[in-house]
Amino acid sequence: MHSEPPLMPGVWKHPRHRGKWEFANPESWERLAPILERGRFDALFLADILAPYDQYEGSANAAIRYGVQFPVHDPSVLVPIVARVTRHLGIGLTVSTSFDHPYQMARRLSSLDHITGGRLAWNVVTSFQSSAFQAMGEEALVPANERYERANEYVELCYKLWDSWEPDAVITDQGRDTYIDPARVQVVEHAGKFFRMKGTSMVAPSPQRRPVIWQAGSSAPGRDFAAKHAEAVFCHQANIQSIGEYAKDVRDRAADHGRNPERLRIFNACEVIVAATTREAEEVRESLAAHVSVEGALALLSGHIGFDLAQLDLDTPIAEVDGTGVRAALDRILDASQDFKVRTWRDAAQWYALSSGAGPVIVGNPTEVTDQIEALVDETGIDGLMLSPTYLPESLAEFVDLVVPELQRRGRARLEYGAGTLRDTLLESSASGR
Amino acid sequence: MHSEPPLMPGVWKHPRHRGKWEFANPESWERLAPILERGRFDALFLADILAPYDQYEGSANAAIRYGVQFPVHDPSVLVPIVARVTRHLGIGLTVSTSFDHPYQMARRLSSLDHITGGRLAWNVVTSFQSSAFQAMGEEALVPANERYERANEYVELCYKLWDSWEPDAVITDQGRDTYIDPARVQVVEHAGKFFRMKGTSMVAPSPQRRPVIWQAGSSAPGRDFAAKHAEAVFCHQANIQSIGEYAKDVRDRAADHGRNPERLRIFNACEVIVAATTREAEEVRESLAAHVSVEGALALLSGHIGFDLAQLDLDTPIAEVDGTGVRAALDRILDASQDFKVRTWRDAAQWYALSSGAGPVIVGNPTEVTDQIEALVDETGIDGLMLSPTYLPESLAEFVDLVVPELQRRGRARLEYGAGTLRDTLLESSASGR
Repeated sequence: MHSEPPLMPGVWKHPRHRGKWEFANPESWERLAPILERGRFDALFLADILAPYDQYEGSANAAIRYGVQFPVHDPSVLVPIVARVTRHLGIGLTVSTSFDHPYQMARRLSSLDHITGGRLAWNVVTSFQSSAFQAMGEEALVPANERYERANEYVELCYKLWDSWEPDAVITDQGRDTYIDPARVQVVEHAGKFFRMKGTSMVAPSPQRRPVIWQAGSSAPGRDFAAKHAEAVFCHQANIQSIGEYAKDVRDRAADHGRNPERLRIFNACEVIVAATTREAEEVRESLAAHVSVEGALALLSGHIGFDLAQLDLDTPIAEVDGTGVRAALDRILDASQDFKVRTWRDAAQWYALSSGAGPVIVGNPTEVTDQIEALVDETGIDGLMLSPTYLPESLAEFVDLVVPELQRRGRARLEYGAGTLRDTLLESSASGR
Repeated sequence: MHSEPPLMPGVWKHPRHRGKWEFANPESWERLAPILERGRFDALFLADILAPYDQYEGSANAAIRYGVQFPVHDPSVLVPIVARVTRHLGIGLTVSTSFDHPYQMARRLSSLDHITGGRLAWNVVTSFQSSAFQAMGEEALVPANERYERANEYVELCYKLWDSWEPDAVITDQGRDTYIDPARVQVVEHAGKFFRMKGTSMVAPSPQRRPVIWQAGSSAPGRDFAAKHAEAVFCHQANIQSIGEYAKDVRDRAADHGRNPERLRIFNACEVIVAATTREAEEVRESLAAHVSVEGALALLSGHIGFDLAQLDLDTPIAEVDGTGVRAALDRILDASQDFKVRTWRDAAQWYALSSGAGPVIVGNPTEVTDQIEALVDETGIDGLMLSPTYLPESLAEFVDLVVPELQRRGRARLEYGAGTLRDTLLESSASGR
């Protein structure tokens, strides 16, 4: 089980969401992270985007106004904060490979793995927003194939740096006045398509040596990158059928790369709205629906699909929607929307917000919710969920208090952490008993 | 009063230095930082180099073997650690402007200023090592003039980003479904010699809006950059005369830039070896001298002056040393060496190590030490010291327990912190009563 920050446009207005400035306040993370550790989650996932969504009406105004993944602070500053109030919880940091040179980033990630005692995961992304490339001084978005080609070289150069020290290089031999044996620290030389370097890694091997590699790409080059490098994959598929297809595809690709597909951990985004009774859970869903921002959702979805949805009439019946990207996005929302009635674009946008980006939404009492999670895992072959929270931190505490004990009773969630690093935690983690 | 990590080759072998891996261990920083706050220091200074010194014998082997500023982890990961165990202590982070684009770095620094509650300083450096440029894929070191030209554009683009939100942009108006007023967030456009960008800062203004700017350049372009941008300057001059000349020069340059030179804070590196009695303090100095690494010092000095000192015979009498860079370095060591007898290069290297890079070394009982600090401040016009620690963390605790109370009695150090940000702390800080 993993968790990420809320992706629900408008949830900041919900009376149970705590505070407006919580993302900048270390104390809020110091309250939130121990809730996840109490629930024996594998990890907290720190998403990131580098620039605001700016497709909707051709500007970032809607993303800014509705606070749609905006502001977004540098998530790396939260890693040490979370590490110091937890002992086992992994911390997944999103870092893009599309802009800088790997030399300093490899050092940063290694330093974070040291400071967390071996609990760092790196969610490798290539950045898909034109606005990010323009902010970084590029003319335009680089195509996905080339972004992943660069990501591949970036990650492999990081591996070279992380592997350049022998494990016993630090000998601290006072008699020979030798702190580190230089013969056990290799100079890294690299001349590739995207990067050149000659130098020495400044960091001794961290507890995991390489952080755990996470990936969430859904495009073909993204899936292939995941199959080659990732130890855990996050997907954002809409329902049991598409999750199952995704999982099979990524495991097949991993086997093609000569890897054991059963060791690849797969987690799908899922929103859980749980309360003591079905009725109360439905009331919570109603109250969330009343607070989401339809226009904020359109700004988010416009950014996700790269098309300005402001051009559409919100009252268009869904049967009349066409246009390749738009129709595909709508169909995905319909796939996810279950019994929620989607008749117009307005309804679709509301559902996109309510479902935190059109993943499954599970609503009910603890037994109902646990039943559905079991079905989701067993019918798809995935290893667990990336929980999309709603109001923070209370929705996480509700999940931990109401759902986790039931998952534990059924042998679907760990009772205690094992010893070791995040890599060990992940390998002993599978809700399907894999 | 500021403090930085030890720069004394070989000190890791000293029996009072704690641990070999302390730099990677968050708990060691959680012990160290509160000592400085107990001593009412302005700030902890986190130095950084990106690649090992590799002039000596044409390789990094000596720097690696003797642990000469090696390993060096990413100092930014320590900022949140230190922030969470202190309330007032500033944290100075060293970040180079020579390699990446300012857009992401401005966000990182702003995020750190948020998470520290307005206690971040940015020590702006341009990186002076060929090894760093080669590690980052460049052919060779860029000349100082161009590095500072780039630093100037880098910092000014950061200013644009930090200043692009109006202070009241976050309105969180539930009735109007508006989190942030887009009209109060400006798009930043820039097309300069080194950087281009068009985009929106992802971070609301932090408590200090701009972190405090620090600088430590000693070259002419470095001093000019400091005079233009820096709020505090760190120098590493050898004695009262050179410190006084440096301080006057930088204040004159600040005035040339239309700034009030009296608001510029100047701190010189200084090592203090204090004990209850003069005799004990001298014994500590002897024990440090017995543990420093002469060859490590040569590796450090070779890196600092860009010349391979392995070519010299260590037993050459100092009168016979010539060669422009070498003679100047030796003269500086002689300026700093006071009553320590320097007769050969071996002695000079030992002193370079013992003085943490040829700054003043003050040795004595608390009264003697305080007298010398007062003289250093009063005769040079600087505002205080950057304390170069020896063994950690004990040498800092000795300073705080033995010297700070005497400085406080004489009105040379604050009794309590005021309210406010690091910028406020610095402006009310001057040992000279400025």
